[in-house]
Amino acid sequence: MTVNIGLLGFGTVASGIPFLLQENGEKIVAASRSDLEITKVLVKDDEEKNRLLAAGNDYNFVTDVNEILNDSEIDIVVELMGRIEPARTFITSALEAGKHVVSANKDLIATHGKELIALAQDKGVAFYYEAAVAGGIPILRTLANSLTSDKVTRILGVLNGTSNFMMTKMVDEGWTYDAALKTAQELGYAESDPTNDVEGIDAAYKAVILSQFGFGMTLDFAAVSHKGITTITPDDVAVAQELGYVIKLVGDVREVESGISAEVAPTFLPKGHPLASVNGVMNAVFVESIGIGESMYYGPGAGQKPTATSVAADIVRIARRINDKNVGKPFNEFARETKLANPADVFAKYYFAIDVPDKKGQILRLAEIFNAQNISFEQVLQQKANGEVARVVIITHELSQTQLEDVTADLNAVADFTVVNTFKVLGD
Amino acid sequence: MTVNIGLLGFGTVASGIPFLLQENGEKIVAASRSDLEITKVLVKDDEEKNRLLAAGNDYNFVTDVNEILNDSEIDIVVELMGRIEPARTFITSALEAGKHVVSANKDLIATHGKELIALAQDKGVAFYYEAAVAGGIPILRTLANSLTSDKVTRILGVLNGTSNFMMTKMVDEGWTYDAALKTAQELGYAESDPTNDVEGIDAAYKAVILSQFGFGMTLDFAAVSHKGITTITPDDVAVAQELGYVIKLVGDVREVESGISAEVAPTFLPKGHPLASVNGVMNAVFVESIGIGESMYYGPGAGQKPTATSVAADIVRIARRINDKNVGKPFNEFARETKLANPADVFAKYYFAIDVPDKKGQILRLAEIFNAQNISFEQVLQQKANGEVARVVIITHELSQTQLEDVTADLNAVADFTVVNTFKVLGD
Repeated sequence: MTVNIGLLGFGTVASGIPFLLQENGEKIVAASRSDLEITKVLVKDDEEKNRLLAAGNDYNFVTDVNEILNDSEIDIVVELMGRIEPARTFITSALEAGKHVVSANKDLIATHGKELIALAQDKGVAFYYEAAVAGGIPILRTLANSLTSDKVTRILGVLNGTSNFMMTKMVDEGWTYDAALKTAQELGYAESDPTNDVEGIDAAYKAVILSQFGFGMTLDFAAVSHKGITTITPDDVAVAQELGYVIKLVGDVREVESGISAEVAPTFLPKGHPLASVNGVMNAVFVESIGIGESMYYGPGAGQKPTATSVAADIVRIARRINDKNVGKPFNEFARETKLANPADVFAKYYFAIDVPDKKGQILRLAEIFNAQNISFEQVLQQKANGEVARVVIITHELSQTQLEDVTADLNAVADFTVVNTFKVLGD
Repeated sequence: MTVNIGLLGFGTVASGIPFLLQENGEKIVAASRSDLEITKVLVKDDEEKNRLLAAGNDYNFVTDVNEILNDSEIDIVVELMGRIEPARTFITSALEAGKHVVSANKDLIATHGKELIALAQDKGVAFYYEAAVAGGIPILRTLANSLTSDKVTRILGVLNGTSNFMMTKMVDEGWTYDAALKTAQELGYAESDPTNDVEGIDAAYKAVILSQFGFGMTLDFAAVSHKGITTITPDDVAVAQELGYVIKLVGDVREVESGISAEVAPTFLPKGHPLASVNGVMNAVFVESIGIGESMYYGPGAGQKPTATSVAADIVRIARRINDKNVGKPFNEFARETKLANPADVFAKYYFAIDVPDKKGQILRLAEIFNAQNISFEQVLQQKANGEVARVVIITHELSQTQLEDVTADLNAVADFTVVNTFKVLGD
């Protein structure tokens, strides 16, 4: 049989799909037990259509989405437009029309996935989105199928290639944040407005989706706290090195006694941790579980071919299931009641960089403040004063998020102390 | 519904399955849409049975396999005995009796998998064996399902935890092979006869299975050349370090123009290669493909809970498919005609450690020999003479396996040269 595909959008990723169908057609046809045909491609307007045709793209380009939605021959709609709208409206209409949908749109799935998944279930169609998390890494299907027998306790991920490229330059070559951003923009890794990447928003979207697959819980995006890499200084990087750590932007989802906790933040990783050597634009998802113990899934987090490969894998699975007449199961079947962790229950070590007056007795003053919150020190480093100000670096023993908030407030209440940075520190 | 399981063997791995069913029962039942029940467990004799009962194991232990094979209530037979016989006979009988089979037996699957897979197909039952390669790493199902859209060009793997533990000690702490083996045996990682682990045989079994899933080709075990770690000296390790490499035992399966090439051998990995930081008993499979590019799957290669998790994942998939009434598809559906590569077509860089007389003109003599085979040098290092003998270390540019064989024969024909070691060298 032939499975007909309608593409929404023909940007970088979409144009990687024909590459796979051509270079790997035999395997894809055998696996899907179907010929896969891209019968229509939605583009923005006639200008884009003419440009693509002139460039030698031999597709049936349309500018009205209804030509795809109302085409009863089209089985699978593949959405590769990005952003929330009009993708959300188009996917909703496609699902309502009984079409299977593949999407790589993490923003949309993290914020409106719940309703789209419910609609797909209601209509008995497939809605798959492997490419939405960590591009080329087949992490979602692996969590859904292979880790089905295992209980995941924590997922740590280097989930944003742009910020990881920047952090790699800052760590390995001592670059400043601004220099790293400039180069990332020149290389096309960062957009002119890099907010989503550098502020941890993109990684937080992925954390929402990983929470569904790993923990069976659907978090609101707002429940994922995110903190970016913009405040990291060469001083922080140098101190981390000295103490045996590498700083990376890490997504961290874990289940504690009271529920699930998800955050994205710059994190001190011990140099021997498998995530510490994930460099450049590569991503990795590190999974802690009661069965396997520790496993890691590493690969490119973005890019035309990797992302297209994940999209094509979804298409193949759907085509195959159409053939096997068992299409329509949810991409992720693991669902439990969503419970958010109590911050008093979520523990980590923390790094504090604090500027204090260059006078005697400051460590004592700091120690009193931390001690009052029952927080003890693992390492303390007082750096040479720079003018009137000395930098004290502290790595604590484990403390809860509540203690972190309280001690930070206490420190901020001291007029001549400045809390420059606070980052989470992972153990070995 | 209830899916009934018969276990063959109740050793380390098997006893990890009840742990998962108990600690993760809710998720497992939901995923498999079934209650999973271990109704019979085959043990060797009454002595083992009584020992296990006395230790508080509350199972229906049987000593005659026919009690399981002839039990029409048992849906899935899980073989965890290891070795070829009687596992081969028992699995064959189970498949013939129309039972689904899960196995972790790499030796058996690498050497007799073809006939067992064909029998399962013939009988319309499932025969799954995720745990047979890299224990807890869900690599086989990932290759079968997620990389279905991708064309794999090379699979490199650290596939044997015992030898990797030993190599880690030899590389990180300068231990000798003998010291590393002794400790591995003391820690229970190596058996008293360590041959399968240290000679690359165990890794070669896994390479056979990876070839099926990655390349759709079924190799005879004899087609996988294997070379172990027994000849690696502290000198080799030190030179590797100096030149920026780490030595590991690496399985390497790749497709070249003429066909597929598979080997297991000590390999120089550049320090920045993701496999280079896979240490201790951990395993990893590094996949090169035209779509994703580079991806890696990392985790424990053995151990009770990791292996049991992979076995349990197979059980869950089968139970679910019994429910969905689409059980019986082969674990790996990717199959092509098996073609072995022409050795003249398989290229790599090589490291040579050669002992030569401590007289002038030796590098010239070596250069003439390599030059006659059209092999050029990338790096040459002459070490201080030790007595009458000087050690020359050469890293070549790429040469074919045929050239390797020829130049090795040429070198061996020179009476006062001794080729101490030859190892493959990977590029970045």
